Formats: sequence, C-alpha cells, structure tokens
Amino acid sequence: METVGTHVANSGDTELKSSDRDHVSHLSLDIGGSLIKMVYFSSGSSSSSEDDDDDDDDEKHNYLKDGINTSNHDGSRGKLHFLKFETSKISECINFISSKHLQHYGDQDDKDLASDENIVKATGGGAFKFADLFKEKLGIVLDKVDEMSCLVAGANFLLKAVNHEAFTYTDGQKDYVKINHKDLYPYLLVNVGSGVSMIKVDGDNDYERVSGTSVGGGTFWGLGRLLTKCQSFDELLELSRQGNNRVIDMLVGDIYGGMDYSKIGLTSTAIASSFGKAISEKKELDDYRPEDVARSLLRMISNNIGQIAYLNALRFGLKRIFFGGFFIRGHAYTMDTISVAVNFWSKGEAKALFLRHEGFLGALGAFMNYEKNGFTDITHQFMEQSCEKSNLTP
Amino acid sequence: METVGTHVANSGDTELKSSDRDHVSHLSLDIGGSLIKMVYFSSGSSSSSEDDDDDDDDEKHNYLKDGINTSNHDGSRGKLHFLKFETSKISECINFISSKHLQHYGDQDDKDLASDENIVKATGGGAFKFADLFKEKLGIVLDKVDEMSCLVAGANFLLKAVNHEAFTYTDGQKDYVKINHKDLYPYLLVNVGSGVSMIKVDGDNDYERVSGTSVGGGTFWGLGRLLTKCQSFDELLELSRQGNNRVIDMLVGDIYGGMDYSKIGLTSTAIASSFGKAISEKKELDDYRPEDVARSLLRMISNNIGQIAYLNALRFGLKRIFFGGFFIRGHAYTMDTISVAVNFWSKGEAKALFLRHEGFLGALGAFMNYEKNGFTDITHQFMEQSCEKSNLTP
Repeated sequence: METVGTHVANSGDTELKSSDRDHVSHLSLDIGGSLIKMVYFSSGSSSSSEDDDDDDDDEKHNYLKDGINTSNHDGSRGKLHFLKFETSKISECINFISSKHLQHYGDQDDKDLASDENIVKATGGGAFKFADLFKEKLGIVLDKVDEMSCLVAGANFLLKAVNHEAFTYTDGQKDYVKINHKDLYPYLLVNVGSGVSMIKVDGDNDYERVSGTSVGGGTFWGLGRLLTKCQSFDELLELSRQGNNRVIDMLVGDIYGGMDYSKIGLTSTAIASSFGKAISEKKELDDYRPEDVARSLLRMISNNIGQIAYLNALRFGLKRIFFGGFFIRGHAYTMDTISVAVNFWSKGEAKALFLRHEGFLGALGAFMNYEKNGFTDITHQFMEQSCEKSNLTP
Repeated sequence: METVGTHVANSGDTELKSSDRDHVSHLSLDIGGSLIKMVYFSSGSSSSSEDDDDDDDDEKHNYLKDGINTSNHDGSRGKLHFLKFETSKISECINFISSKHLQHYGDQDDKDLASDENIVKATGGGAFKFADLFKEKLGIVLDKVDEMSCLVAGANFLLKAVNHEAFTYTDGQKDYVKINHKDLYPYLLVNVGSGVSMIKVDGDNDYERVSGTSVGGGTFWGLGRLLTKCQSFDELLELSRQGNNRVIDMLVGDIYGGMDYSKIGLTSTAIASSFGKAISEKKELDDYRPEDVARSLLRMISNNIGQIAYLNALRFGLKRIFFGGFFIRGHAYTMDTISVAVNFWSKGEAKALFLRHEGFLGALGAFMNYEKNGFTDITHQFMEQSCEKSNLTP
C-alpha cells in the first residue's frame, strides 16, 4: 500500500457510502482521446464502505485500489481516489458521477463565485469536446485547465509529495528513487497517452512542450486491435507477454546471415526492421500468432518513444526522463524496452524513470488547480507532510 | 533523361546484346533485407539492343531505364545501369547475372590478382549471408564492402557527379538543387531501406553512423501486407495515393471537439495519435478501406523518420538532410510528409532533400570501390566531366 504523510491511514477501500457524501470534495477529470481519468478526495473517519452496493462498478473503474492516503492536522484521515473510464463509454463515467453524487464536489469551497453551478476542474481535449454533455447530464460546468500545465503540476506533485513514486526499471528490477526536492529540475516529462507529449520542466510552473509523437498508446491499441482482434488494451498487453518479436521483426542477423554488424555496434539480435519479416509472401496475418504481433508492436512503439525522448533530453542536457501516461501501465516489457532504448542511445548518460501514478498526471494537475485558486489546502497538506517526512529521513 | 558530362549520349536502352559482353564491366551489388540493388557499367557504341530477347526480364528489374550516361575522352560512350530484385527471390538475380554473363565483370581489370575467380564488389548484409550461394551458382567471390562506407561513397558520388540529382519537394513541386562541391559537407544522410541508418557525413571518406530506427521500409511493407493483403510494395504505395488518413488517425480536433490546441501549436487537423481511431469497438480491420490504412501507415512512418532525422541533424547543427533508400521511390506523399516533418520540427531551419537515384547509394558505393583500388578510372571520368561542367556554369 502506498502512503503519504506521517500518519499512515489504511481505509482499505476507495469508495464512499452515501453517508460519506459530505466528506467528498474536489472531483477533477482528465478527458483524453481514449481514457477519462478521475481523481477525487474524501476525508473523514468513515471513508470506507465494505458494504457498498456498487462494488462491481467500483471494481471496474478503480485503478489503484489503495489510492493515496493522508492525515490532516487534526488527525482526521483523507484519501485521493483514482478511477478510469473509456472515453468511448463516457456514459459510464457520467453514470458513476451521478450515482455517487460527485457532481456536487468540484468547487464546493468556492464561496466567492456568485453562482449555484457545479464547477469541476477538467483537462484534456474532452473537457472541450464534452463540455455540453456534462452540463446537460450532470449540471456540471467543466472549468477547463490547460493540458500541459496539468501534466506538469501532476508530475511535480507526485515527485514531491509521494514517497516511492518514481522508480527505474532494469532487468526486471524496480528501484525506487529518492527525489531530492532541491534537485528535481530540470527534467523531461514524457506523457504517453493516445499520443505522446514531451515537456521540459524547469520549475513548479515553468515548462515548455518541446516535442511529441503521434506514435503512442492509441497506435498500440489501434493497430493492435486491427491486427489481433483483441477486445481490450489490457488483453493486448497480456498477449504481448507471451510473444516473441523475433518471429516478425527483421533482425540484423537475418540480413547478415546470423552475423553481428559490429563495426557500427549492432548485434545480430538487434532489430533492423520492425515487422520486416512480415514482407514474406509465404505468410498472411492469420499465420502469425497474435502474441508475437502484440510483442513486436509493443517493442516498436516503446523503443521509438524511448529514442525520441532521449533525443529531446539530449537537446537540453536533461539527464532524467520521467515517463507517465496510461500506455505504460506498469507493464514490464514496456518499461524494459523504454529503459533499454534510453540507455542504449544515451550510452548510459540519461535515465528512464517511471511513476506509480503514471496515468493520472493530468487529472492530478487539474486537482492541484483548486489549490492554485486558494480554495483548499489539501495539496499543501500533502506537500508539507511529505517535506516533514523527508526531513526526518534525509 | 538524366545525363552526366559535357557530351550527352542517349543509348535509349540499358541492356546488352551478347555481342556487347566485352563492353560490360564492374558489376556491383547491394544485398539488403528486402531488395538486391545492382549496378554495372557498359561502354562502347553498340550498347543498345532493341532486339534483346530478354526484354521481359529487363523490364521487370530495370529501375531507371535511362541509367546514367557519360562519354569517354576518346568520344566513346558509357552507361551505368540500375536494376533491382527482391532478396526473397534471389534466384531471379542469379539467373539474370548468369543469362547476361555479368559474373565475369567484377574485377576484370585487376591484373594483379593471381586468381581466376570472378570477384564482384558487394555490400549489404546479404553479401555475407549469400556469399556461399553466389560462389556455388555463379563462381562469384563477393568482395564485401562495408555498408555505411558504400552508402556514403554512393551519395557523395551522386551529389558531386550527377546534375539534377538532389531536389527538394514542397507542395507537390520538385526543385533541383545545385550542389556546390566546396559546400557539400557536413550533411546528414538518411538511408531508408528495410531499416533506417542516419549518417553524419563530413567528407569524402569521413563519416559516422549517428543514429537509425527500425521503423522503416520493411515496417511499411510488412505491416502493410498484414493489414491490406497487398501483393507488392508498389501496390501498397499506389493504394495509399487514394487513401484518407483521417479515417483512422486520431486528430487533435477529434480529441478537442474540432478545436485547435493552439497554445502548443497543434491545429485541429494535426495527428494526435496514429491509428488512434482504430481503437473504436465498432469497426474491425475489414471495415476500413485498405487505401486509408495504407495512407495512415505511410504517413506515420514517413513522419517518424523525418522527426528522428531532424533531431539528429539538430544534434550536429546540420542544415541539410539527404534522404535515400528504396522506401522513398519518388513517391509524392512520402516526400511531402518527410519534408513537412523536417520543416515543422526545425521551424524551417533544416531542409529535406531527396535523390534521383535514392535506392542505389550502397550499390554505387560498392561500384566506387573498384576505383578505390585503382582498377578503373570510370568514376574519375564522371567526376572530372562533372567538375568541368560545374566550372563552365558556376
């Protein structure tokens, strides 16, 4: 279980009984091309609900069952909840909000707004695209927050406030990295959603989107569906675990008759051409195992993202590259491929790091935006507690 | 027709009658993962053959019917011939060599070698992989020349010796670029074969392979075959002409409800996620037009190559990027996408250039290698003539 703060609370469950409604606050949304990410805060001692009658729903959408727990100055407990929905099934998200009465928990602290509208912070393109739908179905006015600023705010929050958030991944080994707050900047943030954004982060609100690529999670899932008939992203990812990319990728050794091309540092097992063996006239799509196709695809996309990220880190002399976004999903092969790519191209100079709450940078950033307007001190509580803890264990 | 030198010869055809055998010399091969590229030289006034009985074969493998013509000091004419074969059908290449007796025309000028072996310069991984096969079937000993050095030698030769070789491609417009020999270096050479090599070229034999990507021509053809059931690379390329990538790619506007994300310079029509719309559960592969799939794939790969090339050019402050390799094939959409990518990412600072003989850099480089060993002055003739011409029209 992941914890934040000096007092560790374990609510055991992330959902709320109707009696807990008054303890919920600060719903925020990140509505992307493929997924809707949701974060909200609950406080109070009764924020567990083993007998919640919406258990199936909770199970389906909860991404991190343990959330992030904290304690307030007065000893009361609080928790950040993380949920996701598919953008194509936005009605599930709307129904969820409605059934939990979450629509009332946006800017509820905002006493200055002379309006009875429910204002909810939202980011991602869907905050624009679905604004009318949220208004109509839930009476929610989506207060749109810039996507890049949210990604950066979310990443900075996680890196500063949550212990055991960032880790390296080498040879199947996760190693959590202690982030020194004074030595955090600059870094490259690579958010791999449907597409990929690469952002140079120089300070709390000091950043620039320096690059990106359209070859991202949507490409993996889109091409993967077409090629394998998988029914979900996670199924495709699971398939890739059992695959062998060498069946479809053309290796240096395939071209060189089993030899390395050592003069330029390419071993016989290096991939010369992704999907290059599929040019063979002897085999059609049905002749390949979906596992192998999924593996080659994941390898191609992860490696490509790692390479472009490295090249951008190099431009600005950045040694640390944090990878977030829902593409990664803590998947071993994805992280391994990205790590190897960054290490290979940078000759060990740059390092790939991953984030426990990788998929929620934008939603957390929108959440932080309540704070920005002075409506709450929740995030401050997290930050201060984390700093205190850091001081205790330097 | 393309010409080199002060005297323009038009032989009209590239092939040789059996009576011309004594005029053929310097066969060279570049045996890649997907294609075998062949270059050979013919000289003499009788090097045309309208009544050649192998016309069908010639038609099939000839890539540039007009070749490169030149004239010798004594007024006799000569010509470089360019042919290609699929590596998977290597027997066609072997039969062709055998039927034309080309195996005798490797190092025929080499009087120093105390051997009666037919030595032919060859590069690419297949020079290793198929060495035994060539020995067995044709009695040819492949003299292996390093792939990168061949690509560079071939590109340098073309850029220095052939007029109207390099061109930019903007808005459907080809503009030939005059290359000042003294201002050629440094440049980035991007060779897009099955895989992609990126080489910083600083001088005649001064270069470094600085990067590459496995997402290249083999990926386009391999993935394209699996997705569209096309029977040839050219058919896939032709399909892409009639396609609309917006059917399958997820655009910024698809995410933002038709709006731009102007703050970071992304218009609503920019691709946010290649193949991102294919995540829809409503459509399977068969529901998409192969034309649209081919278009999205070509766009994704061309754009990716353009972006990685630009990032590498930026590393070394290179303003000119020459794209070669058989992936390009003078295809309008490919060149347009690469040009736009380089222009977009470099904000107009770097320029994409293409080569008329794009696919034959390696084979030409292997050909140049005869020269290197002092066996012939054919290439010198080209060079000198070209320089003379350049002096006349500075």
